[in-house]
Amino acid sequence: MCCAALFVSCGECVEVARQYDRRVSDLRSLLASVRFVVFDFDGVFTDNRVWVNERGEESLAFSRSDGLGLRRLDEVGVRYLIVSTEPNPIVGARARKLGADCVQGVEDKLAVVRERTDAVGVELAATAYVGNDVNDADCLRAVGVPVVPADAWPEVKPLARWVLSRPGGAACVREFCDGVWEAQRA
Amino acid sequence: MCCAALFVSCGECVEVARQYDRRVSDLRSLLASVRFVVFDFDGVFTDNRVWVNERGEESLAFSRSDGLGLRRLDEVGVRYLIVSTEPNPIVGARARKLGADCVQGVEDKLAVVRERTDAVGVELAATAYVGNDVNDADCLRAVGVPVVPADAWPEVKPLARWVLSRPGGAACVREFCDGVWEAQRA
Amino acid sequence: MCCAALFVSCGECVEVARQYDRRVSDLRSLLASVRFVVFDFDGVFTDNRVWVNERGEESLAFSRSDGLGLRRLDEVGVRYLIVSTEPNPIVGARARKLGADCVQGVEDKLAVVRERTDAVGVELAATAYVGNDVNDADCLRAVGVPVVPADAWPEVKPLARWVLSRPGGAACVREFCDGVWEAQRA
Amino acid sequence: MCCAALFVSCGECVEVARQYDRRVSDLRSLLASVRFVVFDFDGVFTDNRVWVNERGEESLAFSRSDGLGLRRLDEVGVRYLIVSTEPNPIVGARARKLGADCVQGVEDKLAVVRERTDAVGVELAATAYVGNDVNDADCLRAVGVPVVPADAWPEVKPLARWVLSRPGGAACVREFCDGVWEAQRA
Repeated sequence: MCCAALFVSCGECVEVARQYDRRVSDLRSLLASVRFVVFDFDGVFTDNRVWVNERGEESLAFSRSDGLGLRRLDEVGVRYLIVSTEPNPIVGARARKLGADCVQGVEDKLAVVRERTDAVGVELAATAYVGNDVNDADCLRAVGVPVVPADAWPEVKPLARWVLSRPGGAACVREFCDGVWEAQRA
Repeated sequence: MCCAALFVSCGECVEVARQYDRRVSDLRSLLASVRFVVFDFDGVFTDNRVWVNERGEESLAFSRSDGLGLRRLDEVGVRYLIVSTEPNPIVGARARKLGADCVQGVEDKLAVVRERTDAVGVELAATAYVGNDVNDADCLRAVGVPVVPADAWPEVKPLARWVLSRPGGAACVREFCDGVWEAQRA
Repeated sequence: MCCAALFVSCGECVEVARQYDRRVSDLRSLLASVRFVVFDFDGVFTDNRVWVNERGEESLAFSRSDGLGLRRLDEVGVRYLIVSTEPNPIVGARARKLGADCVQGVEDKLAVVRERTDAVGVELAATAYVGNDVNDADCLRAVGVPVVPADAWPEVKPLARWVLSRPGGAACVREFCDGVWEAQRA
Repeated sequence: MCCAALFVSCGECVEVARQYDRRVSDLRSLLASVRFVVFDFDGVFTDNRVWVNERGEESLAFSRSDGLGLRRLDEVGVRYLIVSTEPNPIVGARARKLGADCVQGVEDKLAVVRERTDAVGVELAATAYVGNDVNDADCLRAVGVPVVPADAWPEVKPLARWVLSRPGGAACVREFCDGVWEAQRA
């Protein structure tokens, strides 16, 4: 709070703030164009960690806030899909609870993205992809609205048009959905 | 420590500190009026995360400190209730261990708040509600003492008269209860 | 790093650093006197959180570093005991793995501390107690070396002669044991 | 962001940045020499925590990013081994999933390091060791490329030629592997 008070009259900061405002309104028009969203799973719905017990059984941690985000996509009629490299019963269980369609054990994510955008009749330009690691790079490059969580791997961050303020597993899906909903609701 | 030392003579900061002191004493008189508390569950008693294993079984993480907080509400005779949207055996198990009454699978939280304040004969003005997300907004608007954890969703923070310093699942319930206890004990 | 560089010549900071050095050498002579240690469990060996699954089964998280700390107490011949309010099979399992004696389901911790210091023939003045919450206050007041984790509840922090730099569950036990070992080894 | 802007013209910082660049290029040539890697397990692949349930069953948390790191070592033909003091079925399960060779229940890690470097015909000078605690000190001293996670125990940090920017369990293995891969790929 002190720091903010001290810096408030600094000319450079005012300029930074101005650029930020411009970026946000650019983002808004970008998000207004989204008709379809493909979400990577690990590192987006999760913090990219996996808990393993002595029987080799895995657990993942999710944010309850993300569900409300998907409901807001429903509200503005934006469709979505979860794509996961790792085939895992947890992905299916979580997707069912979130009311989301999902494809697991995917080697070539870009092929799935092309196939599904085609099937729903949405251009890649009107598609958003949210992913966090190097195996998401092709998809991030292919779509019109590439998005990464705050803690995405450094190599893919430069590919994003929106770096979310929240890391994976800490409601970054909700943050993304809220942005789309804000831009598209009447 | 260094920073504090450097800023201590800054006039603006002294003013900020003065406003803070005023806010705290306002808060104290507000908390002195509380006779009944309704707590949201996820994001208040928990950090809003859920762990899911391969069999779809859920786990939640709680702070042991919160129990001592509820005991302090008992001490000053303030009653409380836990309300949860999500029907989940964990809610029941945790509420039992905390010695708290609870209602699960609630679609309309405000209806429950009205019903229960009525049943215990406490005005909404003397009721506190602690919640963290948009589905708590109606309740936060209805009661006299709306409270949110530090990490409540940005949309509901402006509805609160007390933004706790601790996030959900990290003893924010205890912080709230300590505040009420401090304001009401002899 | 930048900030450190900037503040290094600030007179006030040099004074702060001097006081800190004095405090550290005072601490060393204090720790040299410790012959017996009583550790609270939740919030010391753990981060005070508990994971609960749908069957009401609990899990706790520990730091592997703490074990090496207890081995260092063994090395300098300092004995120790774990005391837990909560009766829980996890406390027993963890204590066994750490090679530590433990008493569970303790209502009156101070009675146990008095009884055990007596049994091992160590004065309270030469006893350290590590605890984190208000139900540890009596013990912290009774012993010669009261210690709290970095995230101890605000009400008990002023009772400590050493506030550890690490919070509960993040190797604060190890930090304490290393301090005692440093002060006592040949 | 503000701070960066303010400090950018500070002479001392420019010097710090210059030294950093030099360190990074030294590091690169060091990493170019690595032919074999030995990884400690707890505190490197994990955050050094262990979850224990009421039946005494343990769970550990891993980062999914580390797997992609090991694939990059494969790509540049660098071999690796996991060595764990603790014998634990989770170590085996995790190593299998990562496609890594592993030795468990190791009392004398250095003996294993010598034996295996010998077996694969790599000098200790061309071997990297990644470990986090005092029981890794001998190995860190013996190899040509000693590496520690950001949160390694203070006593072993000075032994490292690379202190990773990420702590154990938060993709520090990936960070290390990416560094080796960057230095060695065509």
